[in-house]
Amino acid sequence: MVQLKNKQVILKKYVSGFPRESDLQVVENFIELKKVPEGSNQILPKNLYLSCDPYQRAMMSNSFVSRFGSYTPGAPIHGYGVAKVVESGHPDYEKDDLVWGYAIWEEYSLVPSSHMLFKIEHTNVPLSYYTGILGVLGITAYAGFYEIGCPKKEDCAFVSDASGGIGQLVGQFAKLLGCYVVGSAGSKEKVDLLKNKLGFDEAFNYKEEPDLDATLKRYFPKGIDIYFDNVGGKTLDMVLVNIRIHGRICQCGMISQYNLDQPEGITNLAQLIYKRVRMHGFSASDYYQLYPKYLGFILPLIKEGKIVYVEVKVEGLENGPAALVGLYGGHNVGKQVVVIAHE
Amino acid sequence: MVQLKNKQVILKKYVSGFPRESDLQVVENFIELKKVPEGSNQILPKNLYLSCDPYQRAMMSNSFVSRFGSYTPGAPIHGYGVAKVVESGHPDYEKDDLVWGYAIWEEYSLVPSSHMLFKIEHTNVPLSYYTGILGVLGITAYAGFYEIGCPKKEDCAFVSDASGGIGQLVGQFAKLLGCYVVGSAGSKEKVDLLKNKLGFDEAFNYKEEPDLDATLKRYFPKGIDIYFDNVGGKTLDMVLVNIRIHGRICQCGMISQYNLDQPEGITNLAQLIYKRVRMHGFSASDYYQLYPKYLGFILPLIKEGKIVYVEVKVEGLENGPAALVGLYGGHNVGKQVVVIAHE
Repeated sequence: MVQLKNKQVILKKYVSGFPRESDLQVVENFIELKKVPEGSNQILPKNLYLSCDPYQRAMMSNSFVSRFGSYTPGAPIHGYGVAKVVESGHPDYEKDDLVWGYAIWEEYSLVPSSHMLFKIEHTNVPLSYYTGILGVLGITAYAGFYEIGCPKKEDCAFVSDASGGIGQLVGQFAKLLGCYVVGSAGSKEKVDLLKNKLGFDEAFNYKEEPDLDATLKRYFPKGIDIYFDNVGGKTLDMVLVNIRIHGRICQCGMISQYNLDQPEGITNLAQLIYKRVRMHGFSASDYYQLYPKYLGFILPLIKEGKIVYVEVKVEGLENGPAALVGLYGGHNVGKQVVVIAHE
Repeated sequence: MVQLKNKQVILKKYVSGFPRESDLQVVENFIELKKVPEGSNQILPKNLYLSCDPYQRAMMSNSFVSRFGSYTPGAPIHGYGVAKVVESGHPDYEKDDLVWGYAIWEEYSLVPSSHMLFKIEHTNVPLSYYTGILGVLGITAYAGFYEIGCPKKEDCAFVSDASGGIGQLVGQFAKLLGCYVVGSAGSKEKVDLLKNKLGFDEAFNYKEEPDLDATLKRYFPKGIDIYFDNVGGKTLDMVLVNIRIHGRICQCGMISQYNLDQPEGITNLAQLIYKRVRMHGFSASDYYQLYPKYLGFILPLIKEGKIVYVEVKVEGLENGPAALVGLYGGHNVGKQVVVIAHE
């Protein structure tokens, strides 16, 4: 029995308020390498890339935001990642297969094959893309915009946290379709990225807009047809005032709320009735069946350079806690990836 | 030129807080009878029945709740009603035609034919039904439940203000389809009506339930599939906590908010994401094309006694203000109708 050192990132205790690096801990345990238990159909992947995602903040709580599941204090956290199969007890996977999907924040894992895993078929793109544009983030942006947003050419679309991984993609999908697109973000650098590199029609730094209602009226004099919401809170409340008849709100995330002990109250929901608006929470997990169709849509766009995709990589699992926590300080521009190993 | 006395109900000034009878005034003016202006395609109806509807409260304000239009102080209020055509300049309408639709709160009106009017074809039911079950109220309940709620047999449905005109119908539609249906209302008398006459599985008096979260968990141990919301506010907030994955919220009205100067904040919207819930504001006006189909559905149910429909009638336009204002005190059980004339 070969035992290998296995670094892990564990949650020390439930977090309230802004998460700090010290809420997570890097520990070293051991794992039996090349030892999927006899007769089980588990898979033993070596993790290569891990995705840092806003929703993970919610899983560090056991409060109102964590109803879809919390991490267990003392145990490693999990999320999405890219991995190489070291050993497989499952007939669908072989040694050296590349996969993406559910990943525990550690070097090696024993993963029940019932967990969501996709085999990677296209390797002429950076493998790390499967933590983002070719993974859950991509499906989220695609399903959210097309299935939930039901966009039409010339629709007026607003994307919050537009410089985040999902927001960047949604804005570009909207531009490719011929929508008018405005994004909000939290720094001048991010606003520049949106306007100059990602092709948004307009972008603004919400921290410099004291009257968000006036701001939205300035950018959307006729109102908003589609709001792709990544932030919730006051932004959502003011969008409700500025949404158009038959508008759609793609309810993807509420990052502005995840660090609060009590969420802010939304006061303008009556607008849903007056304007006959559809507000629809969604999750990529309901749309995995679209993945082949999505790959057929996105891979050519990537190859032809019609989509800009910005990744920020840190090397080493020991730098994972800082990278993940950094999401909530608004420092990252683009998709935050933790590199554990290059293959 | 024959001039006739024409009683009207006017709004004295914008209302804040609970409306009082004294916010409205019955005045007597004159109208030129049988005198549609030469060459116009207006219609001159004699009003028979007027409908009292919760949304009218919003139109008495010029605050947040009135964004879809306010009444004009000093002018008569309007709503829906049943009328007989006295004279018509429009080729689709003839003298003595019965119509339902847009109605001004007065005895005689000059109505532009561009306003919504439906000719009444079926007269073997009480004419007053066209202010409610055979009018906008019926289309609202039908479109809201079937088109927005997408109900399935055995779904668990919750209806607030269930003893109101729309709620009564929605609950009965849900039972006819084979759903489990619980209604909330504001008095013992209303709860008895729901359970004993309208066939709801369960009903409760929300005023006697200090912990609405616990109440909903008691009636919906597995959660709520469809919430037909007529009240908004705290009830909506607690439903969000108790809604099931892929639940639907038919956002029809927010009567609990219409008398507030500032709406209450809704704090549990993140549940829309975790449970992938669709919350959809709607209005009957988007579904008038379903009216023939709806009549085909509802008329047999009425004839066969499979639908209970409760009306409360007051006689005389001079009693209209009290009847309308009474809605917001929660006194009415069933559809409140003002009878102006029997034909």
